[in-house]
Amino acid sequence: MKIAETPSPPYYAVIFTSIRNDNPDGYAETAARMVELATEQDGFLGVETAREQLGITVSYWRDEESIRKWKHHTEHTLAREKGRTAWYTSFKTRVARVERDYGMDAG
Amino acid sequence: MKIAETPSPPYYAVIFTSIRNDNPDGYAETAARMVELATEQDGFLGVETAREQLGITVSYWRDEESIRKWKHHTEHTLAREKGRTAWYTSFKTRVARVERDYGMDAG
Repeated sequence: MKIAETPSPPYYAVIFTSIRNDNPDGYAETAARMVELATEQDGFLGVETAREQLGITVSYWRDEESIRKWKHHTEHTLAREKGRTAWYTSFKTRVARVERDYGMDAG
Repeated sequence: MKIAETPSPPYYAVIFTSIRNDNPDGYAETAARMVELATEQDGFLGVETAREQLGITVSYWRDEESIRKWKHHTEHTLAREKGRTAWYTSFKTRVARVERDYGMDAG
């Protein structure tokens, strides 16, 4: 997992913050599959994820339209429903427009 | 660490993604102090953080002005400089306007 190499702003970020229950059944496989599937979508720019007590996954998108399409992707919709009923105690999704960014690269 | 209880959008998110080097000196203390200090700032709405290979800290703010003031806070400025020179291999900061959110609460 690396820092996402996103283009110059503006672009969009979907910040997904979650707390898991203790049911492992199928979670890791589905989480990995959703990352794999997201990277194949038109408008996908990158993803960053980390989990301690809290899980944070930020995915980056070209525009609102690509976020909307990904939200309505059938396999993603089924995975979200499973998340709601089987894997998460609570979660929050925030859709945000990235207006500026700056940073430091290795080396 | 809980999911931040932010107000209705719009508000702002500062997404800070980083990769650490292996120098522990003072890092944990400064990271904790920065969270403590951030919560005291006018316009601060909440913070969420997790670290595996990648560290992700998302802080939430009322408006651009409160982000600007926090960026120029003296102790925060010194901590960022220390991060740049002593603790991080690479990092990226993205400032984003949260346009909508939704989620599920425990219970």
